[in-house]
Amino acid sequence: MRIALCGGTGDIGEGLALRWARDTDHDLLVGSRDPEKARAAVERYEEELDARGITSSIAGFANGMAADRADVVLACVPAYHLVDTIEAVADRLDDTILVSPAVGMQREEGGFQYNRPSAGSVTALAASAAPEDVPVVGAFHSLAAGRLADLGTEIDADTLVVGDSEEAKTTVADLAEGIDGLRALDAGPIANAAPVESLTPLLINLAQYNYELSDVGVRFE
Amino acid sequence: MRIALCGGTGDIGEGLALRWARDTDHDLLVGSRDPEKARAAVERYEEELDARGITSSIAGFANGMAADRADVVLACVPAYHLVDTIEAVADRLDDTILVSPAVGMQREEGGFQYNRPSAGSVTALAASAAPEDVPVVGAFHSLAAGRLADLGTEIDADTLVVGDSEEAKTTVADLAEGIDGLRALDAGPIANAAPVESLTPLLINLAQYNYELSDVGVRFE
Repeated sequence: MRIALCGGTGDIGEGLALRWARDTDHDLLVGSRDPEKARAAVERYEEELDARGITSSIAGFANGMAADRADVVLACVPAYHLVDTIEAVADRLDDTILVSPAVGMQREEGGFQYNRPSAGSVTALAASAAPEDVPVVGAFHSLAAGRLADLGTEIDADTLVVGDSEEAKTTVADLAEGIDGLRALDAGPIANAAPVESLTPLLINLAQYNYELSDVGVRFE
Repeated sequence: MRIALCGGTGDIGEGLALRWARDTDHDLLVGSRDPEKARAAVERYEEELDARGITSSIAGFANGMAADRADVVLACVPAYHLVDTIEAVADRLDDTILVSPAVGMQREEGGFQYNRPSAGSVTALAASAAPEDVPVVGAFHSLAAGRLADLGTEIDADTLVVGDSEEAKTTVADLAEGIDGLRALDAGPIANAAPVESLTPLLINLAQYNYELSDVGVRFE
């Protein structure tokens, strides 16, 4: 499968690209607004993969070009760039699933709070920005980016998947479970995204108050 | 230590009473608005404990009487009864820690949402209702009541503790860890309570969409 990571030069994009490159045969298209930046990131990722003897199919493009060639597009950007990023690639999304891993947070006294958008959730915001026939799935919110990007550490975590298209949700869950140690759980429709996205500020707060829980993940059992 | 479970005839009160009775030497005071109801619940709990050969110190009282005699008071009531319950026992809270396990939720399309009170969280609401010198701690939100009350099943879960008094938080964390299989994690001050309380609707939604996750707990690792 062809996976575009728009904004894939950031930390969550890096981690997903490296894991999928190592653990699966998917073609990875790293996107950035600046294609030079995307190609530079891919060079770094390839060095890391080469050093571990991993051959992979990974290339850098402008976001639109990456999205154009992909079956699944991840918008790996902060919540405040999400709508921009989706609108910029909207006419390239043809038979494509759009995945939103973004979370809105704000730092308040003592720690981080979930900043719930008026759309109901960041995933709902992504759905409102996407063309109507493009299924939107929220996933990969609660993965610690540092741990994900460090291929020397094992992932032993769940990721929660929300979406209104069961088929798209299954595709994304399968992509997630292609990563060693990652389990995908169905958290229901996009209407349920807010408490899923709220996990991320919680994990950051736990890392702040428990020194042993930096880069912590979550398991439901 | 003397622990009062005000509203302890409900499911979370039952589970905590049974677990503390089995796993610790604490004195348990089960409270209800109606002391007859509290005594009837205690009879049921004692039957369950007797059948397992467990002797325990557990008795039923009116809420005020239970709170009066306790070092730690848990308000085991739904969020919409929380302020009432605290105000009714407020003048009995002397050198007492008040613990709030309550969560505000509402059912929406597709599942449950966290219903954030204007106070910022249910724990903050409890703190606003409690006398100023009574330390308030939020804890025990995300424990599946059914699993907790079934002594035949093992708990293997974390509970997150929030509070503005480090001393009170440590006392409550120790109480939590007195229960076999339960680990307490510090989630910071009461200002951080909202994403902690948001876990509960998430767990309910996961149980709805994943048949293997009924009575699910959460682990951070």
